[in-house]
Parts: sequence; structure tokens; C-alpha cells
Amino acid sequence: MTGPTSGTRPDEIRRHNRTALLRRLHIDGPSTRASLAAELGLNRSTIKALVDGLAEAGVVAERVPALRSGAGRPSLLVLPQPNAAVVIAIDVRVEHVAMGFVGLGGEILGRDSWNLHRTRDPGEVITHIVESARLMADDLDATAVGVGVSVPGVVRRADGHVHEAPNLHWTGVALGKRLEAVLKLPVQVGNDAELGALAEHVRGAARESSDMVYISADVGVGGGVILSGQPLRGSGGYVGELGHMVVNPAGRRCYCGCDGCWETEVGEPALCRALGLPDDAPRGAVVAALRALDDPSVLDEFAGWLALGLANIVNILGPELVVLGDLYTALPASVVDAVSSAVQVRSLVSRAVGGTQVVTSPLGRDAKLIGAAELAFEPVLDAI
Amino acid sequence: MTGPTSGTRPDEIRRHNRTALLRRLHIDGPSTRASLAAELGLNRSTIKALVDGLAEAGVVAERVPALRSGAGRPSLLVLPQPNAAVVIAIDVRVEHVAMGFVGLGGEILGRDSWNLHRTRDPGEVITHIVESARLMADDLDATAVGVGVSVPGVVRRADGHVHEAPNLHWTGVALGKRLEAVLKLPVQVGNDAELGALAEHVRGAARESSDMVYISADVGVGGGVILSGQPLRGSGGYVGELGHMVVNPAGRRCYCGCDGCWETEVGEPALCRALGLPDDAPRGAVVAALRALDDPSVLDEFAGWLALGLANIVNILGPELVVLGDLYTALPASVVDAVSSAVQVRSLVSRAVGGTQVVTSPLGRDAKLIGAAELAFEPVLDAI
Repeated sequence: MTGPTSGTRPDEIRRHNRTALLRRLHIDGPSTRASLAAELGLNRSTIKALVDGLAEAGVVAERVPALRSGAGRPSLLVLPQPNAAVVIAIDVRVEHVAMGFVGLGGEILGRDSWNLHRTRDPGEVITHIVESARLMADDLDATAVGVGVSVPGVVRRADGHVHEAPNLHWTGVALGKRLEAVLKLPVQVGNDAELGALAEHVRGAARESSDMVYISADVGVGGGVILSGQPLRGSGGYVGELGHMVVNPAGRRCYCGCDGCWETEVGEPALCRALGLPDDAPRGAVVAALRALDDPSVLDEFAGWLALGLANIVNILGPELVVLGDLYTALPASVVDAVSSAVQVRSLVSRAVGGTQVVTSPLGRDAKLIGAAELAFEPVLDAI
Repeated sequence: MTGPTSGTRPDEIRRHNRTALLRRLHIDGPSTRASLAAELGLNRSTIKALVDGLAEAGVVAERVPALRSGAGRPSLLVLPQPNAAVVIAIDVRVEHVAMGFVGLGGEILGRDSWNLHRTRDPGEVITHIVESARLMADDLDATAVGVGVSVPGVVRRADGHVHEAPNLHWTGVALGKRLEAVLKLPVQVGNDAELGALAEHVRGAARESSDMVYISADVGVGGGVILSGQPLRGSGGYVGELGHMVVNPAGRRCYCGCDGCWETEVGEPALCRALGLPDDAPRGAVVAALRALDDPSVLDEFAGWLALGLANIVNILGPELVVLGDLYTALPASVVDAVSSAVQVRSLVSRAVGGTQVVTSPLGRDAKLIGAAELAFEPVLDAI
């Protein structure tokens, strides 16, 4: 009415509402039209128009809910259709690579993984990823629309440049650009711990928390941070390396050059030593030893270092929740409880924020894969 | 044209532009109309209307610049008028309280301070603040419009509640509400290190940096963090206590209950010990000893702990700049340089972000007072 740009507004609003509705279905799963209307603050005719459009495009399906409550006509259940948007999630770890094709709604439609014992050369890892992606696409008869990659290292999010991934012996790898060139798809690369935090925030233990830290132990130890609902990043978009906080200056030398990094005290090799296993025991043996543990007091020193580092992180960042991921999910509950109590006692800031809770991840080893999928979905949900 | 709310838009835009212009004058000082127009992206007639309005209200004055460049008619210089908006800034420290009346533009118009050796009782501190504010208001013939307070402790910004200020022996002090009740002015309370960071970001060493950490040593050690231009806060708005990061588990017991907090290794008493002074030597003696230091190597161990803690902070937060404030500004330049180099060598993340710089504050002991003033000015600039 007042100029040529005004005419686009209804379209913009419709697109905004459509993305909001898709995001809700993607994250929270099937929902009735009535509850979608209530939660998005839209009237039922708007929801109907949006859902009809998405159903016509095959992005959602509708069905009468199995369980009916009340008398009137039931509100139709809207279900995201996994094949309507499929992304490739890749979790590059120190010992192996895990891949998944993940559909709209978060279902993992297919998986592949392989060990990295023979080589960690970036070129060979990329070649293997591409081959695996082609095979899985054929198997699943799925066409991926985006790629998310988790890497245990210092990553620049803007272009997927891996500055340094010490445990992989990678330095200056243009992983994002190289994968985009061969896969011909948009590729997002993130730090593994940051993606673990994202996964816990979206689909795990931290769904209700906007101030949380995710700590994961694989061979190394990393941390991802969400404060005020936003991922914490430093200068240039780099994510911190919480595992290289020095906690024990009288401790062992870390490969980074410092003595007594947190990672050297609470990483997988340290846990192996506490359990009386060789430093490089296979993961299965470590988990089995933890499950069979008669006397959790052999972990006292390990738990002490874990609590000390967590208390430091809580004192610096003030989260209300710490989620322990990956190998830590195999720790006995009594050890996790002792660590949680110790953090509350040791941290001034924990006391201020009402007692920071320490819990284990319900997503386990899949957290980073799920986080990588969510990273890939972010631009996709706007574009469907 | 399309409804009753549309009519308010020009007013909103005018108010927005007016606040932006005032903020620029407040922070960057006198400026010509021409450069205000260029920097705010507004045309000269809009600037003229805004400046005329502010001049009429006595908030700014205009004069012909002393130095004229080029031939044409000179662009008038616009000067903020300090008395147009005056705030009370209060820096509550462990040993004393400093107060200032600060005018628009940031000039400190008058000061007062007193020692806290006799009592740190919150009620008595508040009484002294109120008396001092009345005397200064009379002296300066100024009417304050807001109050900002810096406190060395765990503070809830929303209502100025001091959860814990250990070195002051304060617990659960409703400082904001109590001061508002007696001063009859809006009161903002902030953590001292957070306000130091704000001051360095607005008027000090970090004007060009949006990812910075400010570390200050008074009796205790605190840190304030700005990432992506925003102050870092944890759950419930609480600011971290960086000084209570444990760096030396084999070290001295801290009053917080932990052994080897960073504060116990690099706070004022630790510096006194390194200098061969009693733990509680007066500040003047500490500064004099630092200035007269023949052999900076007596500070090697102290500098080692300072570097270790800073490297941890850089590894966790990834700032591009660390500003050392308060007592640290008296450290010999060679010690600061050695610490800066050590941080770059020790921190993986520093290497990623291109080398985190460590510098001393140009604001010295005034940083927290200046930060408290800026905290008070934030709501004021919108309301003038």
C-alpha cells in the first residue's frame, strides 16, 4: 500500500511461521494442530493453511490420533516426514568416524562407522566419508540436503577450517571447503564438545536449561558451553579448549606443552590407570571395567580431579547444569553424585546460582552425531 | 496510515536517533555535526534537528571549532554538557570506598573516599555513602539522576542483591534496594571486575576489542568478561569468580574452602610475600616496592602463577585481549611482557585466535568507578 516492499510482508510472515512450525515438529516430534496453534500463538486457520501446504509438499503427514481425549472432533496429529529433509551427520573422533543419515524430526535413518587406527590423514578420512555417503544414499534411497561435521579440535565455524585437532594430529585443515567441493552440499563444521552441548540442549539433558556446560571424555576432554541459550564462542568464533585448563601443575606433561592439563588427569588414559588397565585399553574394556567395579573408591583421585576442574568451570561460567558425556556416562552413579556434591561445596558461584547440578548425558556416544545433524539442519529448516 | 500504531514510528525513530547521538557524544566526546552525520549514517538536516533540540534542552552546546580545516563554512562542534546528566558512581572496595559524581561525557566532577578499616558493616557503609552524596551534591550544586555501585562479590544484577562478598564479609545484602530507598534514585549494582571490563571496553584499553577479559587484583582477584561485545553472565545473571579457579592444589588454603585458588597465588598478599613485605602491607608500600624493584626475578614465581591462570582463562574463553587492572598496573613492564609471552606459548586457543595480548589498564584504580558510572548512565541516556 505504501510502496513496493510492503507487498512482501505477508509472505515473510508466512515463511517465518512455517519455519517456526517446522522447527517445533523437528525438535519436539508429532503434535496436534491444536497444540501447535497454542504453542506458536497462531490461530487454527493459520495452522491449517501452513500444515496443508507442508502436507501437499510431503514434508508432514496428518493422522487421527490413536488416543482420543474428550468428546468433540479430535485435533489431527501432525507428523514430520523423515525423508522430507535428510542430512548427513559425521562425528570424527580420535579412534573412529561415525556417520549417520538423519531425517527431519531427528531420527537416525542409517549409520556407518570405521576405525582410524590405520590412518588419520585428512585426505583419506574425506575419501572414506564420501564413499560411505554414496553407499548410504543408495541403501536408503535418500538425497541429503546438508552436512554437519563434529571434529575434536579448534574449529572456525564460519568456513569449517580446523585450526588444530591435536589428538588427530591435524593442523590447518580446510575440512569444510574440501568436503563441500566433493559432496556438492553445504557443509557445517563444529567443535565436538560444542555440538555435544547443542545436542543436549535440543534433545538431551539440558532441554530446560539455557545456561549449561557439556563435558565429554573421549581420548581427550572437551567442553561446550551454552549461556543465555547461546553457544559461547571466543574471538574469531573459536570455541574454548576446557580440557587444557591446567589443574595440577605438579602433574604429567600434556602434549600441548603444559603440565597437568585437566585432560591428562581425567581423560580416558587417566581413567584406565585408575582402573588398573593399560593407558590405551580399548573402549569396550574400559566400560566393562567400570560396570564391573566392586570398589568405586579406586576412582576417588580421578573423581577429585574431575570435581576440581568442574568447580573451576562453574566458578568462571556460572552454569546451572553440567552434563557429563561420552565415556563419562559409564561412570558409576555414586561417583557422579559425589562429584556433583563436591562441585556444589567447592564453588562459590554454584552456591549463588542455587546449586549447579552435575548429571550424565542420556544421549551417550551419539551426542556429537546428533549435534552435527542439528548443525546441518539449522539452515535447512529455513529453506524447506 | 494503516492503523493507530503506525503514527508513533517517526517519534520512535527520533528517540532512537537521539539516544544514539547522545551515546556517541557521551563515549567519544565532542564531535562535529558533519562527523556525527557520517558516523550515525544520518543526513545533516536530521542531525541539525536533533542537536538543536538537545541544545535547547541544555544537554549539548555548540561552538565553532578552534582548528578549521579546508575552506568552506566549518561544521559546528557539538559538546556534551557534563551537568546535563550527573550520576553517582560508587566503588566499594575491601579497604575503602571511592565515590564520584560523573557528568555526561564521563568527566569526574567531584570525588570522595574513606577507609573501611573501622567497619565494613553494610548499614554503616550505606549511611556514609548517603551522607557523602548529600555533601557532594551541595558542593557541586549538582542533582544526580542515577547511581551505579561496584562491589567485589557475587551480585545479582536485576535487583542489586549481593549474594556474597567474601572479602567484605557480606552475605545476602540487598544493597540495590536499600540504597534506592534512601537515595530515592534508580540504583544499579555490578560486580567490580565486570564493571572494570565495561570501563576498559568503553573508555580504556579494550575500546577496539569485542572479546576481552579484565583481571584485577585488589585484596582479592576478580575477572570480568566481554565476548561478542556483551558481558558474560551465568545462570540468574551472576558473574563468575575467576579468582577462585584452583590453580595450585598443593597451595595455601583460601577462605572459600579450597586450596590454591588463583587469588591466593596472585592476590595482593601473595605479591607482598614475593616482595618480602608483610602480607598486609599498605597499598602505598606495595606500589613503592614494585617501582623500586632492582631484580624483577623475585616475581618469577608470582608471574608464573599469573600466566598459568591467564592461560586457563584464555583456553576456556578465547579472548583476543586481556587487560590487567588495579594493583597489576604497578607491575614492571618486563614482568607483564613475560606473562603475555607465556600465555601465548601455553594456550592452544591463544594460538588459534592469533595470539591473545596481555596489557595493563590505562584507567588504573579508577576503572571500577568509571564502570559504575557507565552502569548508571545506561538507563539515563535513553531517558534524557
